[in-house]
Amino acid sequence: MRGVLTDLLGIEYPILLAPMGNVSGGALAAAVSNAGGLGLIGAGYGDADWLDREFQNAGEARIGVGFITWALERNPTLLDQALEYEPEAVMFSFGDYLPFLAKVRDAGAKVICQVQTRLQAREAAAAGVDLIVAQGTEGGGHGGTRATLSLVPAVVDAVAPTPVIAAGGIADGRGLAAVHMLGAAGALIGTRFFASEGALGSANAKRFILESRGDSTLRTRVFDIVRDYPWPTHITGRVPMNRFCAQWHGHEEGLSADLARQQVIYRRAEQAADTDTAVVFAGEAVDLIDTVEPAAHIVTRVAREADALMGA
Amino acid sequence: MRGVLTDLLGIEYPILLAPMGNVSGGALAAAVSNAGGLGLIGAGYGDADWLDREFQNAGEARIGVGFITWALERNPTLLDQALEYEPEAVMFSFGDYLPFLAKVRDAGAKVICQVQTRLQAREAAAAGVDLIVAQGTEGGGHGGTRATLSLVPAVVDAVAPTPVIAAGGIADGRGLAAVHMLGAAGALIGTRFFASEGALGSANAKRFILESRGDSTLRTRVFDIVRDYPWPTHITGRVPMNRFCAQWHGHEEGLSADLARQQVIYRRAEQAADTDTAVVFAGEAVDLIDTVEPAAHIVTRVAREADALMGA
Ligand SMILES: Cc1cc2nc3c(=O)[nH]c(=O)nc-3n(C[C@H](O)[C@H](O)[C@H](O)COP(=O)(O)O)c2cc1C
Ligand SMILES: Cc1cc2nc3c(=O)[nH]c(=O)nc-3n(C[C@H](O)[C@H](O)[C@H](O)COP(=O)(O)O)c2cc1C
Repeated sequence: MRGVLTDLLGIEYPILLAPMGNVSGGALAAAVSNAGGLGLIGAGYGDADWLDREFQNAGEARIGVGFITWALERNPTLLDQALEYEPEAVMFSFGDYLPFLAKVRDAGAKVICQVQTRLQAREAAAAGVDLIVAQGTEGGGHGGTRATLSLVPAVVDAVAPTPVIAAGGIADGRGLAAVHMLGAAGALIGTRFFASEGALGSANAKRFILESRGDSTLRTRVFDIVRDYPWPTHITGRVPMNRFCAQWHGHEEGLSADLARQQVIYRRAEQAADTDTAVVFAGEAVDLIDTVEPAAHIVTRVAREADALMGA
Repeated sequence: MRGVLTDLLGIEYPILLAPMGNVSGGALAAAVSNAGGLGLIGAGYGDADWLDREFQNAGEARIGVGFITWALERNPTLLDQALEYEPEAVMFSFGDYLPFLAKVRDAGAKVICQVQTRLQAREAAAAGVDLIVAQGTEGGGHGGTRATLSLVPAVVDAVAPTPVIAAGGIADGRGLAAVHMLGAAGALIGTRFFASEGALGSANAKRFILESRGDSTLRTRVFDIVRDYPWPTHITGRVPMNRFCAQWHGHEEGLSADLARQQVIYRRAEQAADTDTAVVFAGEAVDLIDTVEPAAHIVTRVAREADALMGA
């Protein structure tokens, strides 16, 4: 599995931890990096204190960081703050990253851009990013509509020789080997690492992932509405259905009309880690997850399984 | 690439032609079978004369047939008619196939069941079907919401030892090798074969596939409404966006309200093979297709590419 990605990032296995907001903290990122992958802290909606703390929690590990770009636009000094920690790579998703590229390059970090379409991938390649993540709709959290199996080879063809990393639906060595066959240089993995010991997030959330089935995940705006985040409407969040989602998905106008009251209910559930109401972002790959493990085990097992499948 | 599927069906390459209604006729099915795969005639909405003609067009080739199950329920004698031609396999999609299983088995044909969820796959395995096709949302034509990369390994795990065939988004050797890594015994391919010389369907439709991009495909009910087919509403058709679809997708009630007039417009466009209005079912894999080729070339190239990728 060595190749362009492992060389470019100086890592052993072509496995990246997705920068999951409120989930991929410094300890998890460090665990993935120390096991031979690359961990990315998830800056999420942008809390400066959180970001400092999590970079510090990563200790001496070589890690990177990922931003939700439209949130970074609202608070651009977070990028300067992150660059002081000399991250290996900075990943941008969901928004206009062009204004930030020069700063990242000047700091000597690699630029990673996560895209949901072939057209966005071409734009990123034209902008000269170092790595493109092609994210399929089966993935957990926010994303678009195209699916990994057909998006990845289309992006590979469209942006060559820029290396492409696949994201969405990869949780074991079968997935890593499969995207390797599609021409990807590696995999960015979210949901599988959420259900790991290093991940931030409640024990209830991790249990919810183990108990969920891919058949019951869907893309929804319900949790963005109740949390009052201004996501572009074509970008939705994949979640396993829960009671709150079942109540409001398809009835988003009703939710907006009753927003103040529902927000009280929602915040209380968040504080109680009540997964009947509070969101747990996770993708279709929940089917492939039935234990909460140390992140390092996941890295080495996924790599070993993929190697075995590819006859290495 | 030899294995359980090639052994079970007595074929050389683990490649099946999807039974595309009005597209997979006898000549195309025979071309795929004669090249070493298995061709399935697409019985579609069930026209007895068409079915006879296409079985006859297949000549002496060993082929199979695929039904849209809810359409077969309305006209069940079509199954008896098809079985008289001694097909190698009968595939069922979208509906309750249980009432038909005994007849197919008694005729000595293999039973293939196409599913869109892990749960449906478990039901099919419990019913004892010979082969399960796990169909991802990126595929052309009618289907569900789960994506190939995460659906296939989940189904493989859920139905073992029943062999699983992957469908949706596979158009070249990369896709075939990828689904092999996921544990699939082979691939069922639609869109790529639509753009082949053996396929029924207008030259305009094939050109439309070459010119379309995966980014512009979507799942819609628009063409089922205007064609007046009673599809279950959770099963939608993937098409590259065209003018008619752009006009009515998201405005389905308006289409229903103006149905008689729109049907006149639509039928005229169908007769003229006007792809601005008439439907062309095709999946995200259109990105990977830029020539109309003989079907036999597609079979051998996909198999050869996959072999090369897997180091065979
Ligand atoms: C809990 C969770 C939170 C996520 N948060 C972010 C985020 O803040 N920024 C981002 O770019 N992607 C985020 N993602 C998406 C990931 O970057 C990645 O595309 C996805 O997890 C890959 O699919 P998988 O979950 O099937 O591995 C999140 C995903 C999950 C599961
Ligand atoms: C033009 C077209 C017509 C189709 N018609 C049928 C059909 O009549 N019955 C069926 O079971 N599947 C039908 N399908 C779906 C295929 O069985 C298969 O799942 C799909 O083509 C696989 O994805 P792909 O198009 O990316 O190869 C059709 C697909 C296309 C592209």
